[in-house]
Amino acid sequence: MILHDPQTPDTMIPGPGVARTALPKGFSTASINSGVRKYRPDLGMIFSDRDCVAAGVFTKSECKAAPVIYCQKLLPARNVRAIVTNSGQANTATGKKGHVDNEAMAQAAAQAAGCKATQVLVASTGVIGVALDMEKILPAIAELPARAGNSAEPFATAILTTDLVPKTVTTTLRLSTGDIRITGISKGSGMIHPNMATMLGYLMTDAELPLELATPLLREATNVSFNMISVDGDMSTNDTVFLLANGASGAKIVTDEDLAKFRKALIEVSQFLAQAIARDGEGATKLVEVKLNGSPTDELAKRTARSIIVSPLIKSAIHGEDPNWGRVLARLGAEQVPAECLDRMNLRIQGITVFEGGAPIPFDRAETRRLLKSDNVQIIIELNSGEFDATAWGCDLTKKYVEINAEYS
Amino acid sequence: MILHDPQTPDTMIPGPGVARTALPKGFSTASINSGVRKYRPDLGMIFSDRDCVAAGVFTKSECKAAPVIYCQKLLPARNVRAIVTNSGQANTATGKKGHVDNEAMAQAAAQAAGCKATQVLVASTGVIGVALDMEKILPAIAELPARAGNSAEPFATAILTTDLVPKTVTTTLRLSTGDIRITGISKGSGMIHPNMATMLGYLMTDAELPLELATPLLREATNVSFNMISVDGDMSTNDTVFLLANGASGAKIVTDEDLAKFRKALIEVSQFLAQAIARDGEGATKLVEVKLNGSPTDELAKRTARSIIVSPLIKSAIHGEDPNWGRVLARLGAEQVPAECLDRMNLRIQGITVFEGGAPIPFDRAETRRLLKSDNVQIIIELNSGEFDATAWGCDLTKKYVEINAEYS
Repeated sequence: MILHDPQTPDTMIPGPGVARTALPKGFSTASINSGVRKYRPDLGMIFSDRDCVAAGVFTKSECKAAPVIYCQKLLPARNVRAIVTNSGQANTATGKKGHVDNEAMAQAAAQAAGCKATQVLVASTGVIGVALDMEKILPAIAELPARAGNSAEPFATAILTTDLVPKTVTTTLRLSTGDIRITGISKGSGMIHPNMATMLGYLMTDAELPLELATPLLREATNVSFNMISVDGDMSTNDTVFLLANGASGAKIVTDEDLAKFRKALIEVSQFLAQAIARDGEGATKLVEVKLNGSPTDELAKRTARSIIVSPLIKSAIHGEDPNWGRVLARLGAEQVPAECLDRMNLRIQGITVFEGGAPIPFDRAETRRLLKSDNVQIIIELNSGEFDATAWGCDLTKKYVEINAEYS
Repeated sequence: MILHDPQTPDTMIPGPGVARTALPKGFSTASINSGVRKYRPDLGMIFSDRDCVAAGVFTKSECKAAPVIYCQKLLPARNVRAIVTNSGQANTATGKKGHVDNEAMAQAAAQAAGCKATQVLVASTGVIGVALDMEKILPAIAELPARAGNSAEPFATAILTTDLVPKTVTTTLRLSTGDIRITGISKGSGMIHPNMATMLGYLMTDAELPLELATPLLREATNVSFNMISVDGDMSTNDTVFLLANGASGAKIVTDEDLAKFRKALIEVSQFLAQAIARDGEGATKLVEVKLNGSPTDELAKRTARSIIVSPLIKSAIHGEDPNWGRVLARLGAEQVPAECLDRMNLRIQGITVFEGGAPIPFDRAETRRLLKSDNVQIIIELNSGEFDATAWGCDLTKKYVEINAEYS
């Protein structure tokens, strides 16, 4: 698994295979500056040279962006040919005009891709409540096909908002029927507390995927990746993850082993992108990984692991490299982890045990502080009360986060 | 209603009567520096010269402090004579020693108050996981009776942690049977997202209160005051609110009108203290009031109003005096406010309508920014979908919050 951007280390997930960062067969992407944002690409498209089996998972917010409502109606589908995405304006809370604009954007993208509007998916990200600037966006879409190429980077860059780093990852797999490739692209940064999907995620593969598998596989991968991160506890109105499978490799999923390999790779690609989003959260300086092991239920494990990631007290302490484990314990109690589980609990920060069998134990505070200077912080909570494990990812809370969000609209 | 500290304005709640800030009859308080904290009082007691009807509401955390577990067993009761409270050490996650220490603290306070240990309530606040320094605390308790006086301020000061301002309020009421007084004291600041009670609250009255009314009245007042504030979404392990009624005024609650007056005053005192906690949240520069009106259910109104207060994106925008109403809309959607309610919604920031009948409307952004420079920010959300209203209080998110919490343990 190779990440195109060297700024984002690829050490957290051992890749299942090594590949060049080229896109899966039959896919291309393009980007352009439409003029909505200054000095940088703000509009991108993903093209497939043939029909894709496509699935999507979307925000659970009751306040959904126009493109989310549009794509929910279209998916799952067997004939998707393109995705168009703009950054800078979210097309949320834009009334009827929002739906009209979204439809026009799909029409323009269909013309660019040489297909019908119903074969195009749309996503938007940016400020809420501002209408799309169609006079800039529509002519820019027409210029995209001429710019298309076999790299994820143009698209990955065009969809960024306050993100600092484009997020893409590619992996290859050997199935019984041939080699396939999976590429993932995502963006995140603020208003990141996905419930269903993250801000924007795109998974492409040249495997031939049966339609009935597309949604369940995407949902499973999302639940242990994008749905397990949080930057600030604020779920967005535009959260979307798409999966496109165009079959261009000629390889199919035939055996149980093929399916197992594909599932595993899809989860790993999704987790890689989820971690990249957490690490690049607004103002963040550290990636935080919380493992909650030995929970009596899956629900408790997932909810509690993510709640640790959300706590501003814990996030601030991590920023200050302060091993303030009492805040972790307080949060577990607040999340209704049963007192009898807390009485059996072990807690480790950067590998140092600070709490064992339900009681604090003496630990080397200076050494723990030194270990917390790392860009990667790991908190492991062992409840010793069952067989369910969960992992969540987030980031530290910094003054920069406040600065970014005190002046945005 | 007069607040003893001129720094905290008393304009948000019109008081039911005006009184000097002296305690209700029969009560006194005292404070001392035991040596646990430097240069400032860290230990306080409230005394009553006769038995009090007493009730308490406590944190719903599964990780409860030793004093919380102790007081839950004692209350409600007819014969409470004193409350002792230390600041600096929370006596949470301190194992068996925590319970032994708490018992010893109650014993020492009973000796100081001239009563039995079972007539003394205990509360602690401070760092989690550190044992009480009994060698300092026990001898200091013995010195408290000699310092006792008819003012709330010594106690209100001794219980502070990162709070900047002591929080007390007194009101008088004319019942059919005579005049009574209610005094409230509280502390808050960080780890403030009470579910049952706030960090620490003490309500005293010289009215004669039937035991069976004490808990329901306290619970009702808490639900619309302390349980409706949030500084950072982190529920504490030590949240406690006590109500003591010693009957020293000789006045009883006899008529329905007496009860109505008493209920109203107890709610107003509780709301006043809750607002004072929100205004003095860690790093805060503004008090934020969110009114959620016209909700189809009470639960939705309360939960949603408080969720607005918790959002770091909204809190940062308020700090930056940025009328970013899209974030409020996003949060409402994330809280599952039904889309049909959002379609009927009006939204006002500092009295300026920014969203009406489900759609954004043009507004004077410069004027709204100017109004947001106030220390008091009000957001009013009208769902026009039912009869339930709720109000929540919080504060802005500042760089100072991060600074305070990056270095605490």
